[in-house]
Amino acid sequence: MKLTILGCYAATPRTLTNPTSQVLELKNQMFLIDCGEGTQVQLRKHKIKFSRINHIFISHLHGDHFFGLPGLISTFRLLGRKKEMHIYGPKGIKEAITLLLKLGDSWTNYPLYFHELTSKESELVYEDDKVSVKTIPLHHRVYTNGFLFSEKPGERKLDINAVTSYGIDTAYFQNIKNGHDVVLDNGEILENKLLSFDPPKPKSYAFCSDTAHKPDIVPIISGVDVLYHEATFLESQADLAVKTKHSTAREAALIAKEAKVGTLVLGHYSTRYKSISLFKEEAQRIFDKVELADDGKCFEF
Amino acid sequence: MKLTILGCYAATPRTLTNPTSQVLELKNQMFLIDCGEGTQVQLRKHKIKFSRINHIFISHLHGDHFFGLPGLISTFRLLGRKKEMHIYGPKGIKEAITLLLKLGDSWTNYPLYFHELTSKESELVYEDDKVSVKTIPLHHRVYTNGFLFSEKPGERKLDINAVTSYGIDTAYFQNIKNGHDVVLDNGEILENKLLSFDPPKPKSYAFCSDTAHKPDIVPIISGVDVLYHEATFLESQADLAVKTKHSTAREAALIAKEAKVGTLVLGHYSTRYKSISLFKEEAQRIFDKVELADDGKCFEF
Repeated sequence: MKLTILGCYAATPRTLTNPTSQVLELKNQMFLIDCGEGTQVQLRKHKIKFSRINHIFISHLHGDHFFGLPGLISTFRLLGRKKEMHIYGPKGIKEAITLLLKLGDSWTNYPLYFHELTSKESELVYEDDKVSVKTIPLHHRVYTNGFLFSEKPGERKLDINAVTSYGIDTAYFQNIKNGHDVVLDNGEILENKLLSFDPPKPKSYAFCSDTAHKPDIVPIISGVDVLYHEATFLESQADLAVKTKHSTAREAALIAKEAKVGTLVLGHYSTRYKSISLFKEEAQRIFDKVELADDGKCFEF
Repeated sequence: MKLTILGCYAATPRTLTNPTSQVLELKNQMFLIDCGEGTQVQLRKHKIKFSRINHIFISHLHGDHFFGLPGLISTFRLLGRKKEMHIYGPKGIKEAITLLLKLGDSWTNYPLYFHELTSKESELVYEDDKVSVKTIPLHHRVYTNGFLFSEKPGERKLDINAVTSYGIDTAYFQNIKNGHDVVLDNGEILENKLLSFDPPKPKSYAFCSDTAHKPDIVPIISGVDVLYHEATFLESQADLAVKTKHSTAREAALIAKEAKVGTLVLGHYSTRYKSISLFKEEAQRIFDKVELADDGKCFEF
């Protein structure tokens, strides 16, 4: 699981900071999450292969999470894309993008599908044989979802020594990988656990931005390996966090602790702070395993 | 007259090149012309005071001239702008921007006026006591206008030696600056040209992008001091220029020559070319005074 932060600062793009966008690589799929202005330049800068992106998830329709999308969609056209592109985001996203394409008489030459979200409950929005994506309803000034990316459990690993010593025919191997026991010709049952190892634990990533402190997301994200949670403010500006429906670093850490996540990654820092290290210090008073997102930073989990 | 090129490359933003946007300073006004994605970052990078921009002119609604506008409008809100902002652009621009603001529940806290253009004839779209702006109808794949910025003639300069030697009362000075003759008490008429100098020649700037070769703009831009004309292709790709309704460097130079402009500034280069110096060479075979726009370049005329 590889996470590349293209941008993780609040509000508007600046010379040295970018608004929210990140790329999650999971089971050879590449998911783009949010798309602030300038995302396509960040993708180029970090040498991410545009063509591998087939699914884009947009948390909400504030400009700093969304205004890079029209340009990215247009660029895919210029690059001669033929593959389907799927966009997941709040209702209204289809109208906005199609209006912009219509005004520029610039329809895509590839199929563009919009999956508009309206539910206030967590729902499954994407699924293939290896990965599923569910929404995480958040609480912000406009309708907002986080996204939970979960690997599905993989096949069990064959214990080659065991199957050889029992003299099991290769015809049974797939069944064993699928978790089934083996019935020998003499009627003896060999339990699966004698013949295979557990698959690696499926990994999971929860993206939660933007949101006020919302403890009722805890059951949805419980036990995820990595939680990216916004921390726009420090506790000293808690009043601003309440007013603007954002979180403080402390609040992000409280969520991480309650949900017993593996690692908390902080981001969406207000640009008022000179150093982001204060966010880590504040969060670590509550929860130990804290990482700071920063533009261009790449995490492997 | 000062022209800052924020971006002058065709198509999409890349790590080192930006789509079209430029700032024209004329008579202490600051006009923003086109607004490709990333314009707000370019404005910051070149330390241009956002707050001095009150009028934004959009040539057409292709993304590389327009997708930076929603973000810029939002940023003005975040910066606490109170002053009016006027946007001039093709019909549809108001619907697009207002939809994006509505979806983000992010109405501006400053008055935002749209001046939507539909005419296929040149028309006056802006005027104050020192400057006027007219459209230059262009020929592109969608409805497109260039813009002609013209200083109005200033007051005549008082010839202090002359008015002193004739003993003319200061009460007459404004009349003289306005071009009137002076009638002395004895009935003698002093012609204005004896008492004043011509004002500096008013300056003018024509922005023409994007457009196919369109010689019928020549009467509109005739004699301008500076013509920015797109040159997306070299003559060797003239077929592509025809197909995409763009111009070659040679065609831009033909327009400059016919219109007897002072200086031709080329821009909107296709990113297929390794060096933009070829554009200058090609244009200079037709017209001598050629400059190459480049991102971040600043011209004073």
